[in-house]
Amino acid sequence: MSDTALFGPDNLPYGLFTTPDRPGHRRVGVRFGDDVLDAGAAAAEFGSAHTDLLQQPTLNALMAAGRSTWQDVRAQLRAWLTDDAHRERAARHLHPLSGVTLHLPFDVADYVDFYASEHHATNVGRIFRPDGDALTPNWKHLPIGYHGRAGTVVVSGTPVVRPQGQRKPPGETAPLFGPSRRLDIEAEVGFVVGTPSPHGSRVGLEDFREHVFGVTLLNDWSARDIQAWEYVPLGPFLGKSFATSVSPWITPLDALDAARVAPPPRDVPPLPYLDDTVDGAENWGLDLRLTVRLNGHTISEPPFSAMYWTAAQQLAHMTVNGASLRTGDLFASGTVSGDAPEQRGCLLELTWGGKTPLQLPDGERAFLEDGDEVTLAAWAPGPDGARIGLGEVTGRVHPAV
Amino acid sequence: MSDTALFGPDNLPYGLFTTPDRPGHRRVGVRFGDDVLDAGAAAAEFGSAHTDLLQQPTLNALMAAGRSTWQDVRAQLRAWLTDDAHRERAARHLHPLSGVTLHLPFDVADYVDFYASEHHATNVGRIFRPDGDALTPNWKHLPIGYHGRAGTVVVSGTPVVRPQGQRKPPGETAPLFGPSRRLDIEAEVGFVVGTPSPHGSRVGLEDFREHVFGVTLLNDWSARDIQAWEYVPLGPFLGKSFATSVSPWITPLDALDAARVAPPPRDVPPLPYLDDTVDGAENWGLDLRLTVRLNGHTISEPPFSAMYWTAAQQLAHMTVNGASLRTGDLFASGTVSGDAPEQRGCLLELTWGGKTPLQLPDGERAFLEDGDEVTLAAWAPGPDGARIGLGEVTGRVHPAV
Repeated sequence: MSDTALFGPDNLPYGLFTTPDRPGHRRVGVRFGDDVLDAGAAAAEFGSAHTDLLQQPTLNALMAAGRSTWQDVRAQLRAWLTDDAHRERAARHLHPLSGVTLHLPFDVADYVDFYASEHHATNVGRIFRPDGDALTPNWKHLPIGYHGRAGTVVVSGTPVVRPQGQRKPPGETAPLFGPSRRLDIEAEVGFVVGTPSPHGSRVGLEDFREHVFGVTLLNDWSARDIQAWEYVPLGPFLGKSFATSVSPWITPLDALDAARVAPPPRDVPPLPYLDDTVDGAENWGLDLRLTVRLNGHTISEPPFSAMYWTAAQQLAHMTVNGASLRTGDLFASGTVSGDAPEQRGCLLELTWGGKTPLQLPDGERAFLEDGDEVTLAAWAPGPDGARIGLGEVTGRVHPAV
Repeated sequence: MSDTALFGPDNLPYGLFTTPDRPGHRRVGVRFGDDVLDAGAAAAEFGSAHTDLLQQPTLNALMAAGRSTWQDVRAQLRAWLTDDAHRERAARHLHPLSGVTLHLPFDVADYVDFYASEHHATNVGRIFRPDGDALTPNWKHLPIGYHGRAGTVVVSGTPVVRPQGQRKPPGETAPLFGPSRRLDIEAEVGFVVGTPSPHGSRVGLEDFREHVFGVTLLNDWSARDIQAWEYVPLGPFLGKSFATSVSPWITPLDALDAARVAPPPRDVPPLPYLDDTVDGAENWGLDLRLTVRLNGHTISEPPFSAMYWTAAQQLAHMTVNGASLRTGDLFASGTVSGDAPEQRGCLLELTWGGKTPLQLPDGERAFLEDGDEVTLAAWAPGPDGARIGLGEVTGRVHPAV
């Protein structure tokens, strides 16, 4: 399927771009086919009331404006790009995608990473804790999550330097120091908060749409050897904090309406604040089809629809203790893994802890080698058989320094 | 000891304040005795080259300016406040502390919480994991830490609403939902990063002074029942993220020179990047004397000098994987607990998991009750027998909503 079809008038994702003639001038862009619309310039052209929000060096102002503004802006963009009366004037503000540079589209406030795939959590539990139960006793009662490092969230294309750190191989009596030998990816979907919430209040399941601006693809790079040694008892830290890559396009939540599906049945009834099976509750399972490519070869196709916990449940959980939301908060799903082996979203699972390396045309891979390039891509069903592209997030591994 | 003596010319901590006549106008303030100097106004008065940095609604610009600027500004402030030639003009810009409102002094970037007291970690290990070793095998090899929620860092005086969440009391087969019944404090010291570091580089032990702007007191409010149920395997999340309180004054690192002491001997030799025993290495143990008061009664006096890992080691560890630093990064020591029972920095330890409640004049306390007020205070030795006050961080518990 061509990019033109993946980025049609039902998608219209937001990003930030610069052109070579003005490299310091970051502008809000909207992807349309193989072009990028300079949204601020178009808004000025058409005299939009939202021109100020779109003439910013980050998406945060638009994100903070709230859902009715998001809907209004989206309707205007669609009209400018598709109505016969407007198209010609809008076209003056289109730039070929191939000629622009894309940037991290928003200022990240807090970053939270969840652990919401039952298949992933079960596999990791079996690999990391072979003598215990695969799932911890809390897993089906709450969406487990932890805070990650917001300052090292980077845009697609940013090189990923192999981290150094402590690891303790089996049989060693003390940890060794050096470059990670078990560098991995995690294929995830990130949710970007627009509308903030006050400290001391909760965001219920029913308010998900009011707060979440859009969706990004996310690669939660992970150094498994560093992580395995450090993570008991307070969780992952340096094994994750060296880099988290996101796609340059934020797909508006409204563009994913046709992709909403019922989440898988839960065998443990959720507590009321997490119960999305009550009458009138919206389904926030999402039929996003992910692809993981390593040096151009597809190594996995994780289905997001298989996630046990939805993003709406994650948001409700994250705020049930009164924690506030800020514009720019980013929360990620955790590794997306399906039931089948070829649907697993990280090398740890795909190679079962490195024991069964992948056989690729250019060699065997247990974990990532220097020079390897990983790309995550995804699409979702749109209206009337259209497809909504979520773009790509890519990164190449550079040697440790 | 009077506040005047704790905030003399060797201290000069920074904060942000407003006056009742201009409640929206946040200004950089410097505490001097029982007054606050309007630093931006004084800088303009004296024609300082740093006036712009001091006429800001946050400390971040000054923090980002780097150590030589910090030293320069500090020397100017001291001269304005103490030289006979300047004092009178400076006095025009002093406001009585009792008449101003203090605000969160800086924009928090990432927040990291460590776990650096051997006494605390040993006690918690015994209480939470009575059947295992008190310290995990990694504890003496690396300063264990995790990312917390930056968006819920609040200034002293902000009410702390009792969080709701899931807890699973012994004997229950499923978790219950409701207000935390084991609300606790953690007496900590926070370190505030000024100078950023590039992504992909490390900050060595020897560069600590170049990056850390100053020190704050920090109360890492903790809901022990929520934490105990959620924290395996990815660490604390909602049990901590509802509120973290910091003192309104950031004491410059240079004000603590006389408080630097050798850290306790380590029984496991640290890896080279953490080894502060080599020739020429600076001691970054700090002789800070903390006091914890509950409803006005002193319940503990934790000695910061007993911390196993120093802040310099924490900073070196946090960046050894190439993670960047941003201006406004905040990292906290973890609960400060000494060897003696009356030096323990949280109720979990002081009451041994609630089994031996504190006997206070106004009743028994295992964990915090609604209406309780907790205050942390601290001082450090200064030059020539002076004392450097670190101010106070206080918070009152409000009922769950």
